[in-house]
Amino acid sequence: MAESKEGEPLYTTIKYKIIERIKSGEYKVNDQLPTESEFCNEYKVSRTTVRLALQQLELEGYITRIQGKGTFVSVAKIQTPIPQKIRSFAEQMQGLHSKSVIHELEVIPADHSISSLLKVEVTDPVIKLVRIRYADNMPLQYHTSYIPWKAAPGLNKEECTGSLFELLRTKYNVNITRGTESIEPILTDEIISGHLLVKVGSPAFLSESITYDDNDTVIEYAQIITRGDRTKFIIDQSYH
Amino acid sequence: MAESKEGEPLYTTIKYKIIERIKSGEYKVNDQLPTESEFCNEYKVSRTTVRLALQQLELEGYITRIQGKGTFVSVAKIQTPIPQKIRSFAEQMQGLHSKSVIHELEVIPADHSISSLLKVEVTDPVIKLVRIRYADNMPLQYHTSYIPWKAAPGLNKEECTGSLFELLRTKYNVNITRGTESIEPILTDEIISGHLLVKVGSPAFLSESITYDDNDTVIEYAQIITRGDRTKFIIDQSYH
Repeated sequence: MAESKEGEPLYTTIKYKIIERIKSGEYKVNDQLPTESEFCNEYKVSRTTVRLALQQLELEGYITRIQGKGTFVSVAKIQTPIPQKIRSFAEQMQGLHSKSVIHELEVIPADHSISSLLKVEVTDPVIKLVRIRYADNMPLQYHTSYIPWKAAPGLNKEECTGSLFELLRTKYNVNITRGTESIEPILTDEIISGHLLVKVGSPAFLSESITYDDNDTVIEYAQIITRGDRTKFIIDQSYH
Repeated sequence: MAESKEGEPLYTTIKYKIIERIKSGEYKVNDQLPTESEFCNEYKVSRTTVRLALQQLELEGYITRIQGKGTFVSVAKIQTPIPQKIRSFAEQMQGLHSKSVIHELEVIPADHSISSLLKVEVTDPVIKLVRIRYADNMPLQYHTSYIPWKAAPGLNKEECTGSLFELLRTKYNVNITRGTESIEPILTDEIISGHLLVKVGSPAFLSESITYDDNDTVIEYAQIITRGDRTKFIIDQSYH
């Protein structure tokens, strides 16, 4: 019987044993894993324990379970550097095939929080643009932009399939200079899960960014939800 | 009755209505929120809907529910810059009172994944140091370090309460030069939840870092779990 470390639930122990076997290369990408009952026999634990371990591994993106087919080792996460510079989604995806699908584009009146973020008056017109971003045909990001109407009056759907900032620069003469971004871990809700094809309650990144032009006018407030099962942010650090 | 946006579950709509009221300042930090049944009456929705909305708000760190007392607006998250430079926990906490408590210090044989991360042989001695880090007396991080024995032979508990890297530099003549860090969103398990005083399945950051000395020898591999309900990472970006 698998021994649990002091205080550690048994399914956590089993989970880390399976991670270890994936990391060591015993189970390779796209390999089919043993069945639940095979794991039960091997580790001499209950089916509930194995099931909990596999559930966590799936939520964390290590494995994929396909109904009627079995459990498979997932491909490694996409590693994307945390950008020091503002870069387009295509640039961030470094070599993967990227595309954006416009899910929603409408003009809405600013509510209290949008007005304070964009520094416009409450009820001022704001363009709300929702895009779903794909990397190698996998939905990876649910990206909601709020843009003050006066920064891009009459922005239309056909224009928004490429880089938004590039469009703002070339068509609307907006000179973007800097931004601030915050990153938090969240759980996906039904809506986001449906668009990103993950289970409800999956771990994800929520990035919120504010971008400014050369007059320090806010050009965009964005909320970007990125699948956590498929993404790692990477940062290189120096000591001095 | 509160109207749900197209396709959006009603509890999500209610959740965002409450967030809006927190962000607008109608509900301030430490204010007591209305009860579940008051929210039901106000929004004309079921208790299940209100309960789901409040559960999500709690998991995301907006509110705190205290048994027998009620629901209160939480203090804002600690905002910590994503470090471009390797910095001690105390430096990262910028002005908050920080402390580390040693939870575990032992010498273990390297398993396959630790040996490949630290570039040592399997079964080579490795120092495993687990620290719980507090900001203003709130447990914020569960930090596990793996250090090759030869980098810090005989490291003992009494030495590890301050900055580990500072100790390695002054006592063991280790000249740290650079590191790489990855960041992922995860869900806390029982163990971590118990130490960080959050519910099981709360969103958190998992940072994994590898740190090198001036000979490009690996000095530390660390897994750092940071409470997501209390932390935002911040990054400033330029466009050019």
